[in-house]
Amino acid sequence: MGKKAVVLLSGGIDSSTTLALAKSEGLDIYALTIDYGQRHRPELEAAARVAKSMSVREHKVIRIDLRAIGASALTSDVAVPKSRTAHEIAHGIPVTYVPGRNTIFLAIALAWAEAIGAADVFIGATAIDYSGYPDCRPEFIEAFQKLSNIGTKAGVEGRPISIRAPFVSTPKSDIIKTGAALGVDFSLTHSCYDPAHDGKACGKCDSCLLRKKAFAQAGLKDPIVYVE
Amino acid sequence: MGKKAVVLLSGGIDSSTTLALAKSEGLDIYALTIDYGQRHRPELEAAARVAKSMSVREHKVIRIDLRAIGASALTSDVAVPKSRTAHEIAHGIPVTYVPGRNTIFLAIALAWAEAIGAADVFIGATAIDYSGYPDCRPEFIEAFQKLSNIGTKAGVEGRPISIRAPFVSTPKSDIIKTGAALGVDFSLTHSCYDPAHDGKACGKCDSCLLRKKAFAQAGLKDPIVYVE
Repeated sequence: MGKKAVVLLSGGIDSSTTLALAKSEGLDIYALTIDYGQRHRPELEAAARVAKSMSVREHKVIRIDLRAIGASALTSDVAVPKSRTAHEIAHGIPVTYVPGRNTIFLAIALAWAEAIGAADVFIGATAIDYSGYPDCRPEFIEAFQKLSNIGTKAGVEGRPISIRAPFVSTPKSDIIKTGAALGVDFSLTHSCYDPAHDGKACGKCDSCLLRKKAFAQAGLKDPIVYVE
Repeated sequence: MGKKAVVLLSGGIDSSTTLALAKSEGLDIYALTIDYGQRHRPELEAAARVAKSMSVREHKVIRIDLRAIGASALTSDVAVPKSRTAHEIAHGIPVTYVPGRNTIFLAIALAWAEAIGAADVFIGATAIDYSGYPDCRPEFIEAFQKLSNIGTKAGVEGRPISIRAPFVSTPKSDIIKTGAALGVDFSLTHSCYDPAHDGKACGKCDSCLLRKKAFAQAGLKDPIVYVE
């Protein structure tokens, strides 16, 4: 059995490929999905499907209701933007930004890593294509690494837990190529932000648009079904 | 109405005094209590009593079940240590350490602060008397401040949210004196880690011992009832 690693798994392309990468290093995978009250519930089912398909050691779902905090189109009754241009998507912080989300997710992952003695925490954050989220940037990952070194028993005792975001500077089309090479079954993943289509992808929200474009750039067929 | 501040409120002496201090600055208080599955449930009732007595604008309780993560005497069925000496309490990280707790708490507080437009997050962490928790030290607060600056929309847009731990280097006896001067009703607070005494304090766990000692040093009478 390899060293343990906690992998944040949302059920999308980036986190599923991150999990596959961690597994390819021979790590023993503890997948962590946060049920934060996201309106796009199919994401949670996708995470379970992906975890199962990748034979992880354990898949834990932790609930924390960020709807109580609000202020995001992903948790509140704010319209998910549709049909934005690549330029619009790449500039400015969108209404789908969830305040503090990756800070909370990494904090929970760090706690679990420390509890089980894992040496690594993986997150599929990526700053490319979608630069609007402040907590998806390399400097955020670095700041969290410092916090991890200082704020944990493991760090204080000289066994710091590594915060790894292997795709933080990778274009999504390259993440898809890597995932395909590592055997990720993208038909199991879910990216759409819109909760209105019974588990199918809307094809028009920022997340769908970026996914479709990235598959096209990668020269691969996206195996999921779009409403239109 | 003053500027908004989020105050983490556990219902103990340090966080209650921190809340009183924030209020004394004219800030509009949004108290945040995290129900993390702590075995000492009277803490949650104490937080509600304190929030009410201090007329906060809002008191929010957010649930996140850290029992699912385990590895602490505060969330798992591990014995809470009793009758330890001051030296034992002050040295080494105790079994009551909850991995990642303050990282998670601050992350949630930061998210709420950003959602409501608060400029400050207060935490009653203190490194004095009880130096065993890595996430109660000044360097941890500083590291979280940097994370806050980088990982939030507010920080990126030049309105960083301040992480304030006003008592991080203050002996508990001085915190008690300050709280008394600010009118904190300590009879409403709860410190005991032991869930076994129907809301009364055991008088022997680390938290009770530190509380009793600090009241004695402050020359004040502790108004709560101890089992023995």
